[in-house]
Amino acid sequence: MYLARGKSWRVLWKFITLAHGSGGRETGEIVEKLIRPMVPEELWRVEGGWGLDVLDDSALIPLPDGRYLAFTVDSYTVKPLFFPGGDLGKLAASGVINDLLMAGAKPLAAVDAVVVEEGFPVEDLARILESLASTLAANKVALIGGDFKVVPKGDLDGVIITMAGVGVAEKPIVDTRIRDGDKIVVSGYLGDHGAAILSVREGIGLKLEVESDVKPLTDLMIPLIERYADYIHAAGDPTRGGLAMLLNDWAKKNGLVIAIDEAKIPVREQVRAYAELLGVDPLALASEGAAVLAVDPLMAEEVVEFMRSLGYEEATIIGEVRVPRQERHRGLVIAKTMAGGFRIVEPPSGELVPRIC
Amino acid sequence: MYLARGKSWRVLWKFITLAHGSGGRETGEIVEKLIRPMVPEELWRVEGGWGLDVLDDSALIPLPDGRYLAFTVDSYTVKPLFFPGGDLGKLAASGVINDLLMAGAKPLAAVDAVVVEEGFPVEDLARILESLASTLAANKVALIGGDFKVVPKGDLDGVIITMAGVGVAEKPIVDTRIRDGDKIVVSGYLGDHGAAILSVREGIGLKLEVESDVKPLTDLMIPLIERYADYIHAAGDPTRGGLAMLLNDWAKKNGLVIAIDEAKIPVREQVRAYAELLGVDPLALASEGAAVLAVDPLMAEEVVEFMRSLGYEEATIIGEVRVPRQERHRGLVIAKTMAGGFRIVEPPSGELVPRIC
Repeated sequence: MYLARGKSWRVLWKFITLAHGSGGRETGEIVEKLIRPMVPEELWRVEGGWGLDVLDDSALIPLPDGRYLAFTVDSYTVKPLFFPGGDLGKLAASGVINDLLMAGAKPLAAVDAVVVEEGFPVEDLARILESLASTLAANKVALIGGDFKVVPKGDLDGVIITMAGVGVAEKPIVDTRIRDGDKIVVSGYLGDHGAAILSVREGIGLKLEVESDVKPLTDLMIPLIERYADYIHAAGDPTRGGLAMLLNDWAKKNGLVIAIDEAKIPVREQVRAYAELLGVDPLALASEGAAVLAVDPLMAEEVVEFMRSLGYEEATIIGEVRVPRQERHRGLVIAKTMAGGFRIVEPPSGELVPRIC
Repeated sequence: MYLARGKSWRVLWKFITLAHGSGGRETGEIVEKLIRPMVPEELWRVEGGWGLDVLDDSALIPLPDGRYLAFTVDSYTVKPLFFPGGDLGKLAASGVINDLLMAGAKPLAAVDAVVVEEGFPVEDLARILESLASTLAANKVALIGGDFKVVPKGDLDGVIITMAGVGVAEKPIVDTRIRDGDKIVVSGYLGDHGAAILSVREGIGLKLEVESDVKPLTDLMIPLIERYADYIHAAGDPTRGGLAMLLNDWAKKNGLVIAIDEAKIPVREQVRAYAELLGVDPLALASEGAAVLAVDPLMAEEVVEFMRSLGYEEATIIGEVRVPRQERHRGLVIAKTMAGGFRIVEPPSGELVPRIC
């Protein structure tokens, strides 16, 4: 049924490429053309909830008291394991917390599955797990179980940590609720994580004084959810594929146009210059401690003020959602460029850098 | 606090070994000495539930209506990816379902995180994911989300799938409730998965006509839970480390002795002979489609009859739980051997075979 709309994966790909894991256009295709059609449609979600139908940061399952259980999983494969501003453990813990928060949920508990290469130094593993555990603990998220596997030397380069988490949402934020006129709000500088990883990756060889922004957004999102849940129509963290991917995803899911103003997007001068030097769209760089929201236009200014009062001083409105004037504009992201012209912000394609998260 | 009871990991290990991932004694030590002490004790569980305190097949979180949410995660690294009787996808789906069932829960939904090596054939990946999806669907478990990552060629040998799942338990089975006199019941032949993987693994070179028993135990456990939940004091699937590890775990957790009769344990003749040939304890071989229960002695016969009526014709009582007569017997598993003597069944130590599941 789904495949009738486009080419089957059998025609498209013979081998998995790095682009399939980029979080960009090709990852979406893998999910939509390969994985989703294998699951009977009635099992895409638990009745009354959301799942493969919306492909949001977390799936949502109705609870007996009218609230929702948010449920999410991600594997973290970042390389190097220790990077400026963080490490694999902090990344994994922050990632699972943020995915729950972006669904409007209060993170409750997590489980971790660790796969390690034989011969890996225990001291390094301990540092990573200590970082993971302390990040969860600082955010009052319980670590209630896990798995530990070792594969023979040569079968894996280092460590992979997969985190799954659950949380509880009174008013879930499902990204299919974006409306015409909604303002696009960002919580702060974008692209720091992507730039930091790029800059330390072997072979790139350009020094950059920027650290990853990796952190849990609990201190931002919990107050926002408590106060403005009715007005936040979508929330996401621009990780793999960056802001460019997230907004394309929202525009496509909702059949709307998202118009942004590049001059208003907070990107550090060094990050912007670095991206230019590498010939990379800074809007495609990953963040691991930033939130993007679609907010009711009547409340957007107030929400931004509130975010600033919470210490997110760079929070700002960067654009808005519009009804497409022509059918062919449906699902597009359009940016007013620094130079004053307009460009279409494409969903990132190909692999910018593997093992970014 | 915890570390005061034994040697710190800093003294014990410098590098991760295959044994740390065996699911045997060393895996327990990694969890107890390295991971658990990093988590503040109040975050070992969600209030009113069970987690790192009991280290069961699933963690349990109280729901607002008095029931419990079961939550579990495991990474699957099996090699080869396709083996007699199953594949990575069927193993991952069966594993998550069985871990929920063993906590007394009805499996509800799962999420999968797939990490693939660049260059992996899409056709093979599709076969694995089709197997995963159809196993979940046949058991009415929704697949509501996931993650897809690709790592550069050489950074991973093949594919790793991590599955997390949630289910709902009216009467959770927590393995700390074993009592003196409980009968140990097994659902059928043990060790088939371990023997099948061993036999096809390069370098072993001994042909064996046994297939993996990998399958979800929904058709066994759901009726059992509905009818006998009050009398099943513990349930587990003897995966890594086999029956030997599972019973040692139960004996130690409860400070009791478990006495089994080797002649009563259903192990296929070929598997037993094969294990002997390799110098391996057949009780340490993994099963992926078998259940072990501790059942109230008054109901054990009836439970076994019921299991047989469900098609588990080899279901049988293999031993019982006893109060240790001497303090030094606390936590031991003792087997009456085929020859008529007695032996202590040690928790498996060292790595029998890596990437077994």
